[in-house]
Amino acid sequence: MEEGRRIPSAGGKSPIVLTAAGRRRGRPRSERAQRAVIDAAGELLLEVGLERFTIDAVAARSGVSKATIYKWWPSKGAVALDGFFHAVDPKTRFPDTGSVREDFTAQLRRLIRILRTTPAGRIIAGLIAEGQRDPTLAAEFRHRWLLPRRQLAAEFLRRGQERGELRTDFDPEVVIDQVYGPIYHRLLSGHLPLRDDLATKLVDNVLPAITAP
Amino acid sequence: MEEGRRIPSAGGKSPIVLTAAGRRRGRPRSERAQRAVIDAAGELLLEVGLERFTIDAVAARSGVSKATIYKWWPSKGAVALDGFFHAVDPKTRFPDTGSVREDFTAQLRRLIRILRTTPAGRIIAGLIAEGQRDPTLAAEFRHRWLLPRRQLAAEFLRRGQERGELRTDFDPEVVIDQVYGPIYHRLLSGHLPLRDDLATKLVDNVLPAITAP
Repeated sequence: MEEGRRIPSAGGKSPIVLTAAGRRRGRPRSERAQRAVIDAAGELLLEVGLERFTIDAVAARSGVSKATIYKWWPSKGAVALDGFFHAVDPKTRFPDTGSVREDFTAQLRRLIRILRTTPAGRIIAGLIAEGQRDPTLAAEFRHRWLLPRRQLAAEFLRRGQERGELRTDFDPEVVIDQVYGPIYHRLLSGHLPLRDDLATKLVDNVLPAITAP
Repeated sequence: MEEGRRIPSAGGKSPIVLTAAGRRRGRPRSERAQRAVIDAAGELLLEVGLERFTIDAVAARSGVSKATIYKWWPSKGAVALDGFFHAVDPKTRFPDTGSVREDFTAQLRRLIRILRTTPAGRIIAGLIAEGQRDPTLAAEFRHRWLLPRRQLAAEFLRRGQERGELRTDFDPEVVIDQVYGPIYHRLLSGHLPLRDDLATKLVDNVLPAITAP
């Protein structure tokens, strides 16, 4: 993907500043327009779902032209995913009370509730399913949803290590997979419901292995 | 689904005996024919993948007529899944050396290797993806693949409890999700490879929480 055209993956400090920051930074009008597109895309996706999501509707709602949107995002899926991330992100931030157990459980409970009670669950399942046949969409899903979210979790674990609460010799990628993987697995396979009490159990089952002695 | 027409979910003791066992048991010819269908379906699926899998080809390879196959299985997906389960099952049995850590890790390493090195990984990902749009296929996937496999894992954990090696107060469903969920998650989202050393880490991260004091 060409640097300078692409909106960087969400989850960073200033997710709506373009990668070629020198060229774009300090242009509040285009930043505001990008923000409007992202907000419109997030709202629209949660309202109508992925099948009925169109760039025309995003353009109408944001007041930004279709051509401009396509200048900034490579595909419909990319706009949808950036909008989706920014709609869900504020609701699934990690609290920072200083307890890995409390904060991790609270974050997971919020995520689980959003997946269960809003169209977000079906949207994610749909994106992953479509991604099996569409490698571009699969890459967008990873770069605009999954990896930024995993990075937030990795930073959360790192804070726990820096406080001396967690060991430093575990593989954070595997721990993240063991906490979030079951949620995606239940979402996609439907063998068991996404209940609130899952959050506590997911955390309590890995905490003894990663807690500092 | 009608009892008596349906082949029970695989993973039981006699998976090719029909549910209406009284009617079918002791009919070696039809049992042999069912076994031939299951074997042919498993071989075929692993050779050609899900897209090119047809009942015509299963009929040709097994020597059992298409009409008879459809008398025993409700759909193409059901035959494919039963065949798939029986092709993979003997390669992913739990060893029973008396150590949860050793046996769980060995079983996971085999499963991971099969998913990585054979078409099985793409087949499972494809079935889960198709299942998002096809509830019947999703149900077949659960009943003919996922639940029998989860049941084998639950029995394995129960043996560990009976030996006094494992606690008895954990939720086995969540532990099973935390060990297998990450594998399905990596398979479908592709954010990280399915490496052999994942097996050890998956087990070691949950073992402290479930080991008896």
